[in-house]
Amino acid sequence: MDTNDPTPLTINGDTHLFFIIGDPISQVGSPLLFNSLFQQHQIAAAMLPCHVLPTDLGVVIKGLRRQQNLGGIIVTVPHKTRVLRLIDSLTPEALATGAVNAIRRNPDGSLYGANFDGQACVRTFQQLGTDLRNQSVLIIGAGGAGRAVADACLREGASYLRLVEKRPSRAIRLVRELKARFPHAIIDVGDHSPGGFTRVVNCSPSGMTTADAMPIDIDQLDPGTAVVDLVLKPVNPPLLKAAQEMGCQTANGNTVLAAQVDLIADFFLIARG
Amino acid sequence: MDTNDPTPLTINGDTHLFFIIGDPISQVGSPLLFNSLFQQHQIAAAMLPCHVLPTDLGVVIKGLRRQQNLGGIIVTVPHKTRVLRLIDSLTPEALATGAVNAIRRNPDGSLYGANFDGQACVRTFQQLGTDLRNQSVLIIGAGGAGRAVADACLREGASYLRLVEKRPSRAIRLVRELKARFPHAIIDVGDHSPGGFTRVVNCSPSGMTTADAMPIDIDQLDPGTAVVDLVLKPVNPPLLKAAQEMGCQTANGNTVLAAQVDLIADFFLIARG
Repeated sequence: MDTNDPTPLTINGDTHLFFIIGDPISQVGSPLLFNSLFQQHQIAAAMLPCHVLPTDLGVVIKGLRRQQNLGGIIVTVPHKTRVLRLIDSLTPEALATGAVNAIRRNPDGSLYGANFDGQACVRTFQQLGTDLRNQSVLIIGAGGAGRAVADACLREGASYLRLVEKRPSRAIRLVRELKARFPHAIIDVGDHSPGGFTRVVNCSPSGMTTADAMPIDIDQLDPGTAVVDLVLKPVNPPLLKAAQEMGCQTANGNTVLAAQVDLIADFFLIARG
Repeated sequence: MDTNDPTPLTINGDTHLFFIIGDPISQVGSPLLFNSLFQQHQIAAAMLPCHVLPTDLGVVIKGLRRQQNLGGIIVTVPHKTRVLRLIDSLTPEALATGAVNAIRRNPDGSLYGANFDGQACVRTFQQLGTDLRNQSVLIIGAGGAGRAVADACLREGASYLRLVEKRPSRAIRLVRELKARFPHAIIDVGDHSPGGFTRVVNCSPSGMTTADAMPIDIDQLDPGTAVVDLVLKPVNPPLLKAAQEMGCQTANGNTVLAAQVDLIADFFLIARG
């Protein structure tokens, strides 16, 4: 064992518990990510996988909230939307997107829900040295992630936002919702040409398999455009490779995930040096 | 880190969860004991503390049983008796003692309760090379532990059992129950003289503080008598020290605890090399 490695995870009677709930559960990365953070900062806490079927969500949440040493819950597929009505209060982002990906247990046992899917993307742009204010953003995919990213970009002051989505009804519904909340921004649905856009975010699964088409028309990408791709595997998906070749700044799904871990750790009130 | 140390505990999406439920919780030793067993045998499981108030026991058990990756639950004070009516089936020992200290989750989500407090003591005597068949046993304390130890000794064929208990009504009630289940054994309530007894078990807290009186009349202890003391701290309580000086075989609370961990691991179907 390398001497620079943190102390291994020790669980005793004083350990605070955090869970990630999902179905399936074996693929989740949060236990490794958070437990290494807990170890690094010598925090008496552990992040555990909790396999919950959709029909059992209510009864499991009721039980978890009565565990006095529960610190919080991370929520993943398929519970992000349905968990909303089982908890007590929500951040503006969770309320706006209708989805929760992190729940904090307050000392009185009440549960406070948040959604950092969008803020993690914003923070990733900031880490690239760019921001969203008065920028034009092309978002591919209007599912849960696209919805959260669109909301966060507009909150950060993006002036123009275009959604690219295979299912037109889904895109139109989201545009309508966003226009109601952000009346001063230009928001539309369009094709996958990035010409004129200063920020591009791929929120679709496009790029996970080699057979996938490129999510944008890469020839029209400007070298000044910053590109974020939420795809986790491969680590450097085709979109980012092509963008890098054009001289664009890029960030991958793991960078967004790391930003998300940091935001959730703050939300969970985990003190770090 | 010593190279002989087992691999540190790693928690990922495939980890099975075990909990110890109690109130208070910080004192529990099960997480360290079981997690080192899991590490040693490279088992993808973790034992976690779960702080549950008496009023929340029902709702927490309902939630835990719906966690698909729950392996089992260890039950400690004050839930051992009240948890009985919240689960689906019981071992004969749990039924007889009216207390549960381990619950296994079957694949269908049903919960099966057991009590190893007594069997752990029996196994400890076996480890000393002694057994209980046709033996005369002096048990000090007729609370939860004394109750379980008395039941287990009689199951193992002890022919004579005497209870020593400050609260006579408690002792008389237990004697009546035991006589109904073990009609062929002689069972009575008496004073703390060990004369004529071949086995002595201290199930009372006597010996935890230096001000405590010796739980038995040590002068009448026979060198051939085997003595087990459930007290965990100090590691070598006054009773055991005195018994060792008389040449008796002895075992302390940690030995009984280790036997209990082994029995519960078997019950949880934890395969070990």
